[in-house]
Amino acid sequence: MNIAVIGGHACSKEVAKIAEAIGGEIAGLGATLICGGLTGVMEAACKGAKSAQGKTIGILPGHDKREANPYVDIPIVTGLGYMRNNLVVKNADIVVAIDGKEGTLSEIAFALQMKKPIVGIDTWKIPGVKQVGSVQEAVAWIKESMP
Amino acid sequence: MNIAVIGGHACSKEVAKIAEAIGGEIAGLGATLICGGLTGVMEAACKGAKSAQGKTIGILPGHDKREANPYVDIPIVTGLGYMRNNLVVKNADIVVAIDGKEGTLSEIAFALQMKKPIVGIDTWKIPGVKQVGSVQEAVAWIKESMP
Amino acid sequence: MNIAVIGGHACSKEVAKIAEAIGGEIAGLGATLICGGLTGVMEAACKGAKSAQGKTIGILPGHDKREANPYVDIPIVTGLGYMRNNLVVKNADIVVAIDGKEGTLSEIAFALQMKKPIVGIDTWKIPGVKQVGSVQEAVAWIKESMP
Amino acid sequence: MNIAVIGGHACSKEVAKIAEAIGGEIAGLGATLICGGLTGVMEAACKGAKSAQGKTIGILPGHDKREANPYVDIPIVTGLGYMRNNLVVKNADIVVAIDGKEGTLSEIAFALQMKKPIVGIDTWKIPGVKQVGSVQEAVAWIKESMP
Repeated sequence: MNIAVIGGHACSKEVAKIAEAIGGEIAGLGATLICGGLTGVMEAACKGAKSAQGKTIGILPGHDKREANPYVDIPIVTGLGYMRNNLVVKNADIVVAIDGKEGTLSEIAFALQMKKPIVGIDTWKIPGVKQVGSVQEAVAWIKESMP
Repeated sequence: MNIAVIGGHACSKEVAKIAEAIGGEIAGLGATLICGGLTGVMEAACKGAKSAQGKTIGILPGHDKREANPYVDIPIVTGLGYMRNNLVVKNADIVVAIDGKEGTLSEIAFALQMKKPIVGIDTWKIPGVKQVGSVQEAVAWIKESMP
Repeated sequence: MNIAVIGGHACSKEVAKIAEAIGGEIAGLGATLICGGLTGVMEAACKGAKSAQGKTIGILPGHDKREANPYVDIPIVTGLGYMRNNLVVKNADIVVAIDGKEGTLSEIAFALQMKKPIVGIDTWKIPGVKQVGSVQEAVAWIKESMP
Repeated sequence: MNIAVIGGHACSKEVAKIAEAIGGEIAGLGATLICGGLTGVMEAACKGAKSAQGKTIGILPGHDKREANPYVDIPIVTGLGYMRNNLVVKNADIVVAIDGKEGTLSEIAFALQMKKPIVGIDTWKIPGVKQVGSVQEAVAWIKESMP
């Protein structure tokens, strides 16, 4: 099972802490973490997953796998730019949105369009996104949503 | 100049009326209308543009140009599915969002990401989208935003 | 009807002359010329089409429509890089290959895969591509292949 | 390091045997096998890699990861159709072409365009593709070409 973590390539320390904790929990559930492979929320989530012996996939916008953050096990280059946001979500069974700007909003939109379960922490308030206030709540919801 | 009209492939008669009026105004401004090429808001906008002797481009998700609505002059097939939403916005100088669901939300997100001027009528309330209440207001705003 | 002209972004004067003549003939047939929108064979073919009052579409690899050659009426930006080669062929009813390198070879491959009629002048000798020795022969073959 | 195996989704038993042997050798070199994830040459190569405890990635054309052959460890869905051929090659450090039709030809073209080392067995005779007559020769050449 793949769980996507979506969020901005820049984020505060508090948000990074949440993303790292979520990454660890995803690994703990035995799921593979998939993300956009870059910095910020993506890097923090990958770091958390690797600390918990998880597996991470990064779907990169560019052509060079060295753009991936150091915690990505399997970088996939696409050259698709922000269109790759669609692929991040398409490859996920469940989506976790943390913070984020317009890129994250496009991923939320695609997740809703593809009818993927999606939970959000401190992110866009869009109908269809389950809003939670803590990592624990998010994990509880992920467990309920697992196929 | 290209002006994109984004919105759902299904819509009410009221929304269709607004979209048709916007399409006519876009043609009146001498701009080319670009859209996703399908039914609903897209078709109504194209119809309005053609009634006013305008030009219309439809960026289609599938492989068959016969999927285009009858008011599309230049159908472009992509086979990209909803990733083509990115191309609709990428080819626009200004974006008009009317009504719409998740697909439209993804286009709004991409428009904001690409820093395109975007105006909305009866659509998602997303910061950065100029919300207006009438076709006239939308047209006034488009005129101000024209490069 | 769209007829694609595919070929390199750099070419000799002789090849450019052939491409320009083909572009003029495509316009004369009442078809729209579609191509990758850049220089070389693409530009020469567009120039020929415009000299004969034809219509031209350029499917560009990048994000900036100003990359299109001056004879493109309708530039479509994609940000897909060389993946846009697939879209050039996908939007054509018939394909004309002139000269060209690896990019052209990928377009020939896609044309064969999509079972589009394809004629070649001074280009890759690939089974399934009708090889001809002159513009006249190419035009005769295009006429036969028109749906 | 990723090594791509490209070839048709249908192939003879002889070709499958070669692909399986190549897959095993790629695993033996410690590289990850990347391919289009489907049947034929792709499946045989993945099978060989898994028999030798290797790792396999399949870049799929559709939206459903269950389309992957049973020897794919990491399926990546794209919804890009044959445009995904570009991604298979883009993610490879070295490319091995075995047999194959037009799809394989497009991948050869992209590999040459991206200046990736490419070796061929019983495949398209395109300048720039190192042609070899046996698995051993292919492996010797891969070893020389490894970065």
